[in-house]
Amino acid sequence: MNFGDFVQAIDYIIRGDYVITMNEKLDVIRNGAVAVKGEKIIDVGGSDAILKKYSSANVIEGKDRIVMPGLINTHTHAAMVYFRGLADDMPLKDWLEKHIWPAENRWLSPEFVFDATKLACLEMLRGGVTAYNDMYFFGESVAASTKEIGMRAVIGAGIVDFPTKTGNSADEYIKNAEGFINDWKGDDLITPCIAPHSAYACSSETLKKIKETAERLDVPLSIHLAETEWEVGEIISKYAKRPVEHLDAIGFLDKNVLAAHCVWVDDSEIEILARKNVGVSHCIESNLKLASGIAPVPKMLSSGIKVSFGTDGAASNNDLSVLSEMSTAAKVHKALAGNPTVIDAKTAVIMATKWGADALGLGGTVGSLEKGKLADIIAINFKKPHLAPMYDVYSHIVYSAMASDVETVMVNGRLIINGGRLVAGSEDDIINKAVEWGRKIAAC
Amino acid sequence: MNFGDFVQAIDYIIRGDYVITMNEKLDVIRNGAVAVKGEKIIDVGGSDAILKKYSSANVIEGKDRIVMPGLINTHTHAAMVYFRGLADDMPLKDWLEKHIWPAENRWLSPEFVFDATKLACLEMLRGGVTAYNDMYFFGESVAASTKEIGMRAVIGAGIVDFPTKTGNSADEYIKNAEGFINDWKGDDLITPCIAPHSAYACSSETLKKIKETAERLDVPLSIHLAETEWEVGEIISKYAKRPVEHLDAIGFLDKNVLAAHCVWVDDSEIEILARKNVGVSHCIESNLKLASGIAPVPKMLSSGIKVSFGTDGAASNNDLSVLSEMSTAAKVHKALAGNPTVIDAKTAVIMATKWGADALGLGGTVGSLEKGKLADIIAINFKKPHLAPMYDVYSHIVYSAMASDVETVMVNGRLIINGGRLVAGSEDDIINKAVEWGRKIAAC
Repeated sequence: MNFGDFVQAIDYIIRGDYVITMNEKLDVIRNGAVAVKGEKIIDVGGSDAILKKYSSANVIEGKDRIVMPGLINTHTHAAMVYFRGLADDMPLKDWLEKHIWPAENRWLSPEFVFDATKLACLEMLRGGVTAYNDMYFFGESVAASTKEIGMRAVIGAGIVDFPTKTGNSADEYIKNAEGFINDWKGDDLITPCIAPHSAYACSSETLKKIKETAERLDVPLSIHLAETEWEVGEIISKYAKRPVEHLDAIGFLDKNVLAAHCVWVDDSEIEILARKNVGVSHCIESNLKLASGIAPVPKMLSSGIKVSFGTDGAASNNDLSVLSEMSTAAKVHKALAGNPTVIDAKTAVIMATKWGADALGLGGTVGSLEKGKLADIIAINFKKPHLAPMYDVYSHIVYSAMASDVETVMVNGRLIINGGRLVAGSEDDIINKAVEWGRKIAAC
Repeated sequence: MNFGDFVQAIDYIIRGDYVITMNEKLDVIRNGAVAVKGEKIIDVGGSDAILKKYSSANVIEGKDRIVMPGLINTHTHAAMVYFRGLADDMPLKDWLEKHIWPAENRWLSPEFVFDATKLACLEMLRGGVTAYNDMYFFGESVAASTKEIGMRAVIGAGIVDFPTKTGNSADEYIKNAEGFINDWKGDDLITPCIAPHSAYACSSETLKKIKETAERLDVPLSIHLAETEWEVGEIISKYAKRPVEHLDAIGFLDKNVLAAHCVWVDDSEIEILARKNVGVSHCIESNLKLASGIAPVPKMLSSGIKVSFGTDGAASNNDLSVLSEMSTAAKVHKALAGNPTVIDAKTAVIMATKWGADALGLGGTVGSLEKGKLADIIAINFKKPHLAPMYDVYSHIVYSAMASDVETVMVNGRLIINGGRLVAGSEDDIINKAVEWGRKIAAC
């Protein structure tokens, strides 16, 4: 035996009939494999070559499997899963004022948010989502719950100008946000961020303080932006500027900002978003269901904005499936544009992986299967009636696969879902807890 | 024991935490059950009452299950599943002329259609579809394959004015259609129908002959109608009338006709469709993906048209999930109308069941769970992370459930899918055959 024959022992070898790398050349490896040691991907290549170089007690077989980077959900309110289906098919104002806000006011607590976030994480993981961006209340509970199940997240400490269950004033929320950031900064799974709700719920002064805080603490920012036509009118009447122009004028926008929705943006606002390298989270299913409108994504893409996908909360979607967002977005924009080449399947996969990672400020560490990146990896089983035969792997992912086709999910080198089920912990316990909470909520 | 205590032995008792009847009052029975004897539903009611009145060796338990009428797919080209993902993200003309037609010309045969239809039926059944309307070539193979797996279908013998692999002239196609109808009329699962392709592929003379034949043989008619803007221009240039006006003028339209797509219909055409009681199959995902446009469904519904859902072929969708169509349609039309009350969840379920049955001319026998109707019944398992908690059963079906949540499917009193799997026959065999065909097709 010489050095050339040395076989390195590693933690996992994940094989796949197709390995979608999302590397710079967008290589798709037939009969490929990914080598994982500790938290990291240490090699990606042909299956035979990987099996010669490495040995592992944990070889996940690849027949009829598509191995790819974990999907990234760049905008949600995870704990709202407990309000899934509580109120549908009604105007946004009634939905919020008569149902969602009263329910939140009645029920939100650290315990509620912890339990609900766990369910949301389970749903996302089972659908191949390995990282998400959250904006909600009780960030400590969101973070602790996400960490416990082993998922990656960028979690925003929410800020508004008015009192809620978690604070009384912008200054108090900002102070709390600093505490939250200090508690979680440097964690291997959780990235704390600051999440001012919107330009209509936060004054210019508040937004400027937040911007200063984010820069000082070196954390990302996320915000709702131009979600509804009402918002545009509101901001124009207050500031004589459209929402994107207003945020730009106060110096809020840069590559550190992730803006959710951006439905009502005009060409000059798209130009600003592109020039300032703002990340955009496209939440098409929620925007459709609330009748908010449809973001001009093809224009954003051709302006160079790296648009990613967000599910928004399950109360307005009503699921947390990024696969479903990809399919809906790729189809709807074709019809609106009258052009079936718009958002092709490969582009949708890039948006859901690479650009999702960029949007979360994690582009250097996740979003592709490459040596040195963190091992956030999923495998889709395509031996299913609705996935046969196979001509184009990207087409199947975007147009035919469902969340339930995801069989294996690894986050940060740890196997979380295998055989479509949670590896550690009981799914039944998580679901039963949701049913209990749901019973209490429904009784009110 | 007296007569009051007499317990009748029957074939199946299907229980559910929720039984959605789709009867005239749209009753939803909590802790309900459906009693099945032979091909028929003989009773529907509370679970306790049903279990007192009947006994069966086959009680399908109902905990965490929604029991409802089978979903109905009112427009597809089943055998096109073998072309799923063969060509995407391109203009309709290129898609048809450079990919689909050459592939059909090279590959279609009775054997291809038989095998491909089996895969399509399996996919539909696993997604809770119990009946479908097909329009393709080699109707005998479509019918034999559908019959063999045990699914219900209205199968159209396709007619065009030009030669194809299955005939040379309209007269030959019509003669073949008569033969097909005579072969299958009276079958318990298969209803033969006549399916002229469209007003642009069939002359007025051909359509009139077809109409006369359908009336003489008492079978339904189905046709593509106003799918693309191009078609409208084509028909106007030929007949100086829009497509619906043209078909009306030649006496083609009545309640016996199922028109697929109806994307490009104006208000006066909607009025004609409503007045003539024409069934409309809304194929939103295919229309979106091919960038054909979006049918004005809210207007159709308020005009009294009983719109139902069609998947179209899997080459342009790319799946055969009616649950997915319901979700997409309910969401997209809200955004287009700027009104979130449009196509509410209950309406979407009515469209996918009752009105689907009406569209297929089977409203008297399937589409609801009522005494005397044929036993086409499905059960959805809602003990899933993405279906918890539960506040509104209709909302969950439309906005959160996936095809893979369907666990039990009965057609005509026969249990076809149980535990999410085919009861008789091998799913692997059906999928492996698709993979083999796919390999041959991809190699060309």
